[in-house]
Amino acid sequence: MTYCVGMLLDEGLVFLADSRTSAGVDQISTFRKLYVFERTGDRVLVLMTAGNLAITQSMVSLLREEIDAPAGGPTLHSVPNLYEAARCVGDALRRVHERDAPSLRAHDIDFSASFILGGQIRGEVPRLFHIYAAGNFIEATPETLYFQIGESKYGKPIIDRIVQPSTSLHLAAKCALISMDSTIRSNLSVGLPLDLALYRTGELRLGMHLSIDREHEYFGMIRERWGDALRQAFSDLPDPPWS
Amino acid sequence: MTYCVGMLLDEGLVFLADSRTSAGVDQISTFRKLYVFERTGDRVLVLMTAGNLAITQSMVSLLREEIDAPAGGPTLHSVPNLYEAARCVGDALRRVHERDAPSLRAHDIDFSASFILGGQIRGEVPRLFHIYAAGNFIEATPETLYFQIGESKYGKPIIDRIVQPSTSLHLAAKCALISMDSTIRSNLSVGLPLDLALYRTGELRLGMHLSIDREHEYFGMIRERWGDALRQAFSDLPDPPWS
Repeated sequence: MTYCVGMLLDEGLVFLADSRTSAGVDQISTFRKLYVFERTGDRVLVLMTAGNLAITQSMVSLLREEIDAPAGGPTLHSVPNLYEAARCVGDALRRVHERDAPSLRAHDIDFSASFILGGQIRGEVPRLFHIYAAGNFIEATPETLYFQIGESKYGKPIIDRIVQPSTSLHLAAKCALISMDSTIRSNLSVGLPLDLALYRTGELRLGMHLSIDREHEYFGMIRERWGDALRQAFSDLPDPPWS
Repeated sequence: MTYCVGMLLDEGLVFLADSRTSAGVDQISTFRKLYVFERTGDRVLVLMTAGNLAITQSMVSLLREEIDAPAGGPTLHSVPNLYEAARCVGDALRRVHERDAPSLRAHDIDFSASFILGGQIRGEVPRLFHIYAAGNFIEATPETLYFQIGESKYGKPIIDRIVQPSTSLHLAAKCALISMDSTIRSNLSVGLPLDLALYRTGELRLGMHLSIDREHEYFGMIRERWGDALRQAFSDLPDPPWS
């Protein structure tokens, strides 16, 4: 499985993805699931993927092919806005579906794929989309300012409590890392290294792109101390009156 | 949906169930999902149910029928140990399956059902089982001392951090309530009132059975203050070095 989360804040965008894929418990591998498409000064697009790796990799390859050898159609480097970028991703996914879905069906394999696409294109505010396997998509709003794909449930409560539009980029990143830590602890199929990308509104270049592995000091601190902090919060809360 | 959690501790057993069922968003109802079978001084069995309500209610009715009019076979009031009690539940479920599964299949409805059964029968230690739709089951051990059914993921991280075999019954109940609160906040399909039951090892009668609704003072305090406590824990944790 996978866990990815993308957040749309007043200050910009946060993207966090794990890198574990599994095809059965004896085929656990590390694959990056966070892709950056950037033309500094014009656009930054970050795409995170979940689902069948053959599908998601194919789709990303098609998107890159189109950029490298444009055939006249829209590409992620040419579309005028994020909505069209999400359509571009959806269209590439539909081409993969057309080609692979019948064979997958013949092998009883679901066409499973979902994506988070976010970024900024010059002339627009930053936007964030959740793209489904059918190539359709929804957009984040101030009321629903984050999307998760993959193993989303373990890490949802902490985000629901902390993140608001006014949350700073760095605090939102901290919250995303705690959410990831909770997910990793509760689900074996999500694992390090992590890809963390931060985008600050208006910069039109990626502000930070970190790879976080076992040796990463800050994430190591979170792994160590968040559990303690939770236990402390738990014990600070009054015990039941019947005890 | 549903969220139920059962915990096996040195001190005894904790059971917590919500009561929301839904058949589509316009058919939200309240049904109890926690059933107690008790013969004081001899046995206490607590059964919690998740899945298709028609299936789980049928199964509980069959179990009660057998107790009220025993036909010579094993019943929850006559079985000599918890393992046989779990078989008893599994057998009743298989009878419901035999009767209903073909019709359900004809309507494309899954035979979805899962159960947590725990308690103590005289001569044995307390035991806890997770029973699947096929009527098979697994038993809790000190390494895996709790089971969840229904919407289990949101409320798992806090249990993973807090509950150990030596955790007191009351602290485990507090943790179960926090786990339920996180689930209710992140998932509309889980809701009040809650059923909380505590069983203390060796007592052979249920120690406490509470119904917790909106007016319940202690759960209200948890709802109000756990979010604050989490936010405090979050802000106490060092911010990222890159901020």
